[in-house]
Amino acid sequence: MSASTPQSAVTVLGLGPMGRALAGALLDAGLAVTVWNRTPGRDRELVARGAAGASSPESAVAASPLTVLCVVDYDAADAIVRGEAVASALKGRTLVNLTADTPARARETGAWAAAHGIGYLDGAIMTPAPTIGTPDAVFLHSGPEELYREHQPVLDALGGTHTHLGADIGRAASYDLALLDIFWTAMAGYAHALALAKAEGVTARELAPFAQGIAAILPPLIEAGAQEADAGSFSGDVNPITSAASSMKHIIQASEERGIDASVMRAAEGLARRVIGLGHGRDDFLRITDLLTPR
Amino acid sequence: MSASTPQSAVTVLGLGPMGRALAGALLDAGLAVTVWNRTPGRDRELVARGAAGASSPESAVAASPLTVLCVVDYDAADAIVRGEAVASALKGRTLVNLTADTPARARETGAWAAAHGIGYLDGAIMTPAPTIGTPDAVFLHSGPEELYREHQPVLDALGGTHTHLGADIGRAASYDLALLDIFWTAMAGYAHALALAKAEGVTARELAPFAQGIAAILPPLIEAGAQEADAGSFSGDVNPITSAASSMKHIIQASEERGIDASVMRAAEGLARRVIGLGHGRDDFLRITDLLTPR
Repeated sequence: MSASTPQSAVTVLGLGPMGRALAGALLDAGLAVTVWNRTPGRDRELVARGAAGASSPESAVAASPLTVLCVVDYDAADAIVRGEAVASALKGRTLVNLTADTPARARETGAWAAAHGIGYLDGAIMTPAPTIGTPDAVFLHSGPEELYREHQPVLDALGGTHTHLGADIGRAASYDLALLDIFWTAMAGYAHALALAKAEGVTARELAPFAQGIAAILPPLIEAGAQEADAGSFSGDVNPITSAASSMKHIIQASEERGIDASVMRAAEGLARRVIGLGHGRDDFLRITDLLTPR
Repeated sequence: MSASTPQSAVTVLGLGPMGRALAGALLDAGLAVTVWNRTPGRDRELVARGAAGASSPESAVAASPLTVLCVVDYDAADAIVRGEAVASALKGRTLVNLTADTPARARETGAWAAAHGIGYLDGAIMTPAPTIGTPDAVFLHSGPEELYREHQPVLDALGGTHTHLGADIGRAASYDLALLDIFWTAMAGYAHALALAKAEGVTARELAPFAQGIAAILPPLIEAGAQEADAGSFSGDVNPITSAASSMKHIIQASEERGIDASVMRAAEGLARRVIGLGHGRDDFLRITDLLTPR
């Protein structure tokens, strides 16, 4: 790192809604921010606010000891950073990749970075762009602890809470995908419930207070379920999976009688029926976790 | 109703875990409780606590102005109440059916009851058996308002909160299925997330606090989504469905690379891809509600 690149300088590659929010928060924190985006013109507002607009990704990277990358996926990320010029410019510097993709892709990029003498941290942003720079933002990080601590002051300038999950570079993506798995599956359930309710003459406004009540009982069940999952015991004393499967059957039947697609619930019921078929009908629904996990 | 059947007398048919909890709460409230179950012997503890054990469903029904029925589904319910002797005994009395099934089955039974001169209310119990008789119990009711008000004091003796949803006899089942739709779909997502996390070396205990954080953001999204759903506008300003589909693709890919079944998420992604294919890629994920609802 040269004398012209102080620790308080940071580069942001990728200026979609999230990249612009990240760069904006870093500017607000008083850092020297250099920005670059493949499609030109996206940096206008940031440059007006004091950012330096770079003409190439390699010159952007060369301007700071730390580069934050946030694009649509790792294919897009690789297209930017794995070129000869950018990889050379990154050598001896640190790349924090906040792009979302799979744990395997994160680990593969970690290996590539190590082979090119690039410090590499992988992160996940769990909250939408408007939260960046506010206390509501949630960031997960993984990679070498020492490298994380070195750049923590700049990362903290993005606002919100930051958690370092461990040295395994795939860890942030693992948490990210598991949490999005819960989120999007639950939202698919809500969308389906709205359709089923509507077909039965129940408006979304009427259902919403009760739906919020259902969501409110999830946290303690998540906590209890986690203990069961790690222990490998899935006691169904209160609510056996046979009861869940019966409810699922009713939901599918009521939906399809109204012409409503029930493919999501059909897949979920299939898992429950297989657990019952394997002799675990008295166990809790979360026993399907075992079924999903290959031996 | 004869002079020997005071308003404070109530009959409970079906003594599974939920039926026993209902009868127990009514006994605790000081009511004269008559009980019956198809398989004998299930009434022993209740009789020891003061319940009258009936030898037949018709004699059980004849003992009270109000009969509460809670069995596994409407096939089981019909097998009990639609016989000649029980139907005759129910004439001029009221049946509250707390058995879970589809709205169509509830409406069909409502029509049968009307044709046989039986007052009929349909209800749903939204909380597990241990909550019955406590403030945590949640009951939904539907059917004629006047009939509901007449029997409300006895129903209130079951504890918890009771909501009368309207005269349409299918309404309690509609809410019940829509809410269970959200619940079981979300739980399927959690079970899958636990399997995915485990495959990546993340324990359930490690994931749980973040998973609870995800569950905690659902209530405001349910509220906002309900307004969009009723208005038919699904603005994806913050989080377009293309972004959701991208996350879903990563979840499926990461799961299947580890040999984990992703059938639930595959079904959900299919819905998202179809919404995008129909030109609504900038809309919110809940736009799939429209796709699910037949024209």
